[in-house]
Amino acid sequence: MALARISRNWKQSSGTYAINRYITNKDAPFYNNVEPVTQVDHMKFESWGTQAIQGYRFGHAERVTEDYSDTKTDKFRYGNLEATKAGDKPRVVVLGTGWAACRFLKGIDTSIYDIVCISPRNHMVFTPLLASTCVGTLEFRSVAEPIGRVQSALAKDPNSYFYLASCTAVDTDKHEVYCETVSDNELLYEPYRFKVAYDKLVIASGSEPLTFGVKGVKEHAYFLREVSHAQEIRKKLLLNLMLSETPGISEEEKEQMLHCVVIGGGPTGVEFSGELSDFIVRDVYQRYQHVKNYVCVTLIEANEILSSFDAGLRQYATKHLTKYGVRLVRGVVKEVHSKKLILNDGSVVPYGLLVWSTGVGPSEFIKQLKLPKSPGGRIGVDEWLRVPSVEDVFALGDCAGFLEHTGRPVLPALAQVAERQGKYLVELFNKKIAKQNAGKACSANDASLGDPFVYKHLGSMASVGRYKALVDLTQSKNKGVSMAGFVSWLIWRSAYLTRVLSWRNRLYVMINWATTLVFGRDNTRIG
Amino acid sequence: MALARISRNWKQSSGTYAINRYITNKDAPFYNNVEPVTQVDHMKFESWGTQAIQGYRFGHAERVTEDYSDTKTDKFRYGNLEATKAGDKPRVVVLGTGWAACRFLKGIDTSIYDIVCISPRNHMVFTPLLASTCVGTLEFRSVAEPIGRVQSALAKDPNSYFYLASCTAVDTDKHEVYCETVSDNELLYEPYRFKVAYDKLVIASGSEPLTFGVKGVKEHAYFLREVSHAQEIRKKLLLNLMLSETPGISEEEKEQMLHCVVIGGGPTGVEFSGELSDFIVRDVYQRYQHVKNYVCVTLIEANEILSSFDAGLRQYATKHLTKYGVRLVRGVVKEVHSKKLILNDGSVVPYGLLVWSTGVGPSEFIKQLKLPKSPGGRIGVDEWLRVPSVEDVFALGDCAGFLEHTGRPVLPALAQVAERQGKYLVELFNKKIAKQNAGKACSANDASLGDPFVYKHLGSMASVGRYKALVDLTQSKNKGVSMAGFVSWLIWRSAYLTRVLSWRNRLYVMINWATTLVFGRDNTRIG
Repeated sequence: MALARISRNWKQSSGTYAINRYITNKDAPFYNNVEPVTQVDHMKFESWGTQAIQGYRFGHAERVTEDYSDTKTDKFRYGNLEATKAGDKPRVVVLGTGWAACRFLKGIDTSIYDIVCISPRNHMVFTPLLASTCVGTLEFRSVAEPIGRVQSALAKDPNSYFYLASCTAVDTDKHEVYCETVSDNELLYEPYRFKVAYDKLVIASGSEPLTFGVKGVKEHAYFLREVSHAQEIRKKLLLNLMLSETPGISEEEKEQMLHCVVIGGGPTGVEFSGELSDFIVRDVYQRYQHVKNYVCVTLIEANEILSSFDAGLRQYATKHLTKYGVRLVRGVVKEVHSKKLILNDGSVVPYGLLVWSTGVGPSEFIKQLKLPKSPGGRIGVDEWLRVPSVEDVFALGDCAGFLEHTGRPVLPALAQVAERQGKYLVELFNKKIAKQNAGKACSANDASLGDPFVYKHLGSMASVGRYKALVDLTQSKNKGVSMAGFVSWLIWRSAYLTRVLSWRNRLYVMINWATTLVFGRDNTRIG
Repeated sequence: MALARISRNWKQSSGTYAINRYITNKDAPFYNNVEPVTQVDHMKFESWGTQAIQGYRFGHAERVTEDYSDTKTDKFRYGNLEATKAGDKPRVVVLGTGWAACRFLKGIDTSIYDIVCISPRNHMVFTPLLASTCVGTLEFRSVAEPIGRVQSALAKDPNSYFYLASCTAVDTDKHEVYCETVSDNELLYEPYRFKVAYDKLVIASGSEPLTFGVKGVKEHAYFLREVSHAQEIRKKLLLNLMLSETPGISEEEKEQMLHCVVIGGGPTGVEFSGELSDFIVRDVYQRYQHVKNYVCVTLIEANEILSSFDAGLRQYATKHLTKYGVRLVRGVVKEVHSKKLILNDGSVVPYGLLVWSTGVGPSEFIKQLKLPKSPGGRIGVDEWLRVPSVEDVFALGDCAGFLEHTGRPVLPALAQVAERQGKYLVELFNKKIAKQNAGKACSANDASLGDPFVYKHLGSMASVGRYKALVDLTQSKNKGVSMAGFVSWLIWRSAYLTRVLSWRNRLYVMINWATTLVFGRDNTRIG
């Protein structure tokens, strides 16, 4: 039966006909017949997210049937999710899958809205625990939440979609976003280009690491913002540990290979340094006996580490890190080469692994958008997270900041801020915007939006390794609580456990922590 | 204190001196002063394992001090683990980290021997469960056992080592192996070359997938032998599922992208097809509603699937697979292109994912060794797994086969065979060879080796998906037990659970199975 079905099926697509068809698909670019357009000034295409693409101009993606005349079907359309019609649910397009976007997606009322989420990654990264995955304390997938688990309508609702793509431009007049799919490493597929019409647009596409124009950073340093970054760091670390055992490697080379340098003394840099020293003390000393004395961690910071924390906590962190072998150095990096970096004072620092975490700034995509900007170059928003001067566009998270005229400061690029903004905006969508002509495009109405967004900082936490953490709940001088040590570490773990979104990941984080305690960290190097 | 220490430390290596030193290390190849040698005929260097390197000739790795005169140290040596001296423990060099090598390493008496293990991967892969990791039933690290957990002496004993390297040649007269370290993807490090002297050599470097010279297989198909292969398959599968939702993708393209083709109906091909159909029925149907009807699995086999199994079980497997949507096709692949393959009868099969599992054969490394060969081109061994005509060399697992004059058949390339041979050989080493001049080189003595290796097949197992498996314990016609179904599946799971080496991985496999049952498979696409 089955075989009969197959052979019938295959007959239809066998022989030269099928070959031709597939060659056609591959060789005929979809845009043969699309002329460049110039009327939309800001439609220069730049990279967004992790993709770096060449600038190009984008044409209208209309039906392209000429090249496919032999397919004998009129189903073929290219790259167009048309505007919703009267009677359809309004379509909310969300750019990004970070903290802000996912909090928004999680809460959105899918009985009111259709949702389209566009992002080059299909999961949210639980960033505060990312440092732990680099050394094997946690598994990579324990800190990644697939977008389908955050909002199941994306997979199930007939008019809601998740697109694995980068948004490259926005036309706020036409209410359209222009996108390009991510491609696989082997570039088997040409990236597909398409456009999506929106009723409401939520931009939460995040930020990019700041390199301050230092030469060589992008080529040689690792960032720590994606799970794939953590995987690369782990691979490099284990490779260096193993290669340094090779017979005949000189003392200098061993020292260089096993010198881990972290640039930036913010929470990410400190947590990564702490995890690394913990890994060295607990695991390297046991499992890499031949080279253990060569391993060393240096944290380089221009000013003070953890500058946003209480002075007492900073002191505690400094003491704790140096006690467990992390060398703290004041310095500014001038140049980065493949095996060494040069500081402003001329000193040369050989390294085997370089992790760069000196904060974030607006991405290329955000920079090229012709939208109002906040101080610092983020998308400027008003108190309701709306982008003024254009209709139906909202921005939140690391890519958004209050406009100067609001009299409010641009908020720090923290998960906490993004998550709170996502929560605020989704309430606005579900309760207020839904009532304005059922949420359709071009029906905004100032009167009914209610309370503006107000951010109240709840406190900061950072782990420093060896079962110790800092918890800073000070709200102003001499008010609130700040503590450090084992109890803080327990608070840090429990706080994170309850914030990991799904029960699956809560369970896995707990199991990972338990097995690390019992069996030590896993040091398999895959790939 | 710490800062003072650092600045002191750095002063020594700062300024132009240090820059020069590092530039020297990078730019001066270690082999400037090493002349090609010709006296050893078989020292042509070929690839081994996953690395493909250009053939070259290898010189004596002697002290290279001229280029490093400014390092003012005589510690610098290049690439030589010298022969053991009288009074030292004998050194056993093991090539590989597969089933045979790991069983041997696990059992070797480290109070008698020093061990050096050389392999391009630092872990053993629990191959029978690899198919389950491609679709997310199991985590990747649950099926990988780091070599340090198999034999802790490699990390701890002062004269035992694990080298992340490929062996490129063997000089059986000098009792030396020649190696080259693996390099990272970015090629920051030149591969290091070094040689290791042995008292006894155990070759267990495995096999390579057979492609039968079919054009395009290596470029376009995925094999399923390493954890990194499973990662790539998973990434591709999820990419195709997501890209196929992109607006404007044609029906034909969707069908092509979501057509998973498996070549080879052996246990690996069948298990992978089963897992895939299970994934489609359980997960794709829920999470990829928009494209679920386009997903399809085809298994292509030239003869019968599972030819080594009992006829009844074959029938069961065929029925079960077709019931759950796997299309079984008889055919021989002629050519593979990037998005389609062509069968011998001229039919064209478009595909989005192609997995190739048509068995294994001798690797390039094994082929170029000037050692006696068994029928089929593996290293020829006698009944005690020794390589005759050379001293102190043993071979086992997929890379070894009985010589014709032994009158025994070459054993199939199965984990079961490899594991049993490792177990046999380690007993031989611990009990018999240790008594021959304490196991040192060139002291072999036929008389005392005891019983030869005898292989008794215990049975075969294969899962076919949906909680069903085959268990074939027939030893000859009409003797023994063969069964299929849910009970077999339970046996299959328990058998595998008890054979996963460490408790950590047993625990993780169990937890992975449980969470898959409760939460479904994880569909995060990382990287």
